[in-house]
Amino acid sequence: MDEKAVKLFSEKNLVYIATVMKDGSPQVSPVWANYEDGYVLVNTAEGRIKHKNVLRDPRVAVSVVSKNNPLDMTTIRGVVEELIPDYDYKHADKLTQQYMDREHYPFKRDDEKRIILKIKPNKVFVLPELKMSD
Amino acid sequence: MDEKAVKLFSEKNLVYIATVMKDGSPQVSPVWANYEDGYVLVNTAEGRIKHKNVLRDPRVAVSVVSKNNPLDMTTIRGVVEELIPDYDYKHADKLTQQYMDREHYPFKRDDEKRIILKIKPNKVFVLPELKMSD
Repeated sequence: MDEKAVKLFSEKNLVYIATVMKDGSPQVSPVWANYEDGYVLVNTAEGRIKHKNVLRDPRVAVSVVSKNNPLDMTTIRGVVEELIPDYDYKHADKLTQQYMDREHYPFKRDDEKRIILKIKPNKVFVLPELKMSD
Repeated sequence: MDEKAVKLFSEKNLVYIATVMKDGSPQVSPVWANYEDGYVLVNTAEGRIKHKNVLRDPRVAVSVVSKNNPLDMTTIRGVVEELIPDYDYKHADKLTQQYMDREHYPFKRDDEKRIILKIKPNKVFVLPELKMSD
């Protein structure tokens, strides 16, 4: 994947993931994610709308913008190839370190099971440099 | 609309809009937007993917998170009721003030025509307060 896109996934930037509802309309929500070995790994919980949506249609899109420079961004279309249990919060803890500089995921709930959406990027768009017109 | 959601649209927070591609897969991109008289107004340019998508299917979803507090967020599903020309950059200038504290939209291009997606919110979700578990 593009180096600039990879960098955006290693920082504290929220990732926005779009999925498709049962009626064919779009849905979007902010998530924590990172990039490892060719895949975008989104952490979410079982039973959420986006989980239900990808079980039915694994096609997703994600968008990330740099907190430091809004012109530094990528949007990606891809497919959820696998749903990986994160019941032990290993990935959630890793992302807590990335996003909050804390060791453990602080929003644990007894009724929640974390999972990872393993996304294979198909189309990666990186915004070319924009010139200011005035 | 929920007061908290309205506030999120009045600040410098980027808005992420999801649309549906011709093949039924989702698309998402960051945009500038504000909220006026019951509508979310997204500024984009003619011919962009999201413009083509809403001409075919006007259903969209948007997500906004506060720059200051990532737990302060809203996601909305709605429909583009109208496409409004912004060829004179009036709305683009207004959003430039909101997002950049500058008077005029600085990314003008001769080959670009700005338009406004006028979105009627149907479902508004505001994240309830989360408790930290440790």
